[in-house]
Amino acid sequence: MSIPNPLEIIDQATYDFVREWMALGDASHDFQHILRVYNQAMIILNAEQQLHPKRGYDTRLIAYATFLHDIGDRKYFPHKRPIDASDPEFQYYALLVKHDLQYTEATNVVFHALRARDLDVKWAEDVQMVCNCVSYSYENSNPDEVGKAMKMHPELAIVQDADRLDAIGAIGIARVFAYTGAKSKTRGLNGTLQHFDEKLLKIVDKTKTETGRKMAWERTEKLKTFLRWWREEIGDGSS
Amino acid sequence: MSIPNPLEIIDQATYDFVREWMALGDASHDFQHILRVYNQAMIILNAEQQLHPKRGYDTRLIAYATFLHDIGDRKYFPHKRPIDASDPEFQYYALLVKHDLQYTEATNVVFHALRARDLDVKWAEDVQMVCNCVSYSYENSNPDEVGKAMKMHPELAIVQDADRLDAIGAIGIARVFAYTGAKSKTRGLNGTLQHFDEKLLKIVDKTKTETGRKMAWERTEKLKTFLRWWREEIGDGSS
Repeated sequence: MSIPNPLEIIDQATYDFVREWMALGDASHDFQHILRVYNQAMIILNAEQQLHPKRGYDTRLIAYATFLHDIGDRKYFPHKRPIDASDPEFQYYALLVKHDLQYTEATNVVFHALRARDLDVKWAEDVQMVCNCVSYSYENSNPDEVGKAMKMHPELAIVQDADRLDAIGAIGIARVFAYTGAKSKTRGLNGTLQHFDEKLLKIVDKTKTETGRKMAWERTEKLKTFLRWWREEIGDGSS
Repeated sequence: MSIPNPLEIIDQATYDFVREWMALGDASHDFQHILRVYNQAMIILNAEQQLHPKRGYDTRLIAYATFLHDIGDRKYFPHKRPIDASDPEFQYYALLVKHDLQYTEATNVVFHALRARDLDVKWAEDVQMVCNCVSYSYENSNPDEVGKAMKMHPELAIVQDADRLDAIGAIGIARVFAYTGAKSKTRGLNGTLQHFDEKLLKIVDKTKTETGRKMAWERTEKLKTFLRWWREEIGDGSS
């Protein structure tokens, strides 16, 4: 299959805003992550359409949601108005100001960003709803809301799976350790391994599409192999 | 085999200084790295002694060098006297001041730290020489000096191999991505994969002991498997 260039679907201003925003992130949450999730979502969409020819999916909704799903990520979105340029949140806040979005919150920034492009209100609400429901931890805390959103927008299942696949397998291993280096110095490598048990190994059971689940299963096996390697190497030290 | 507690060999003040220093590092270069290298060196030492019963190795030199080998790491050692507490080098510099080492350089800080414990001058010089010659890139740039040091101190081969083993295999994968997250945002995950080709896959050929080389070979196979996984996952996006 050939994956459409995202700029055939997404307007240039939104594309540039996402690229600017993600450029502020670390290697675990950067623009490459967005492009991988977009590509992965298009692959899943294609496979699901072949499996279920009668289901209708809105490709444009999937494309916009993959691009915008991390703008409101609370690990990066500014929690206050920083006044000190050495504050890591300063650059994010400056970008909100540049785009006249300084009065938005993590939960509605996507809506307002799309409205600023004169995109339809209902459409902007739909993209915001899907973006708000992508997160694994948000779903764990708000299963009913996410379940309802998925009934209204089956595209959410595809965006979720694409994002979750990027958290496991070789890519997921790379990202979780990059995140530790960038944002969570205290947990160290050993604490990161705990995160495999707490979250990464459970992701496969939270995938929604047949295509996503099959891929997630394969990537989960890689996580288990990696953990076995680690035990072998550390085990050298106690044998 | 049972590995001696490092405090049976290393004086408490040196141990504490290393722990304080490495606590300032990111997850790729922290005190856990030091403890792993110490353990790995003791395992290699034990195996090499069994392979070559007539060779004499100085266990104390190995222990001190594993503990101190990263104090002069130029990726972290302060290059100037920072006056701004938001400067990442500030805390390192403050620790040098605390230990009356503010007039040292990356290449002699170990010597002066040991002299401050009233350890013998010749002994402090030996540990410093081994520490200076551990680095893979230093050896590439100064092969003759490192070769001479290894003839004088065969312990260097063991410390080098132990440190290099921590840069490959599952542990190495974790550390290289943690380093990208912490210190090298611009290279991203893709740039980190290039580092596999530029350095990590070549390490096995730079190991010095039979024991270290065998372990390095196994860990290099894991790196290759990881790269294959990555290509599979990204390849999903172009197939």
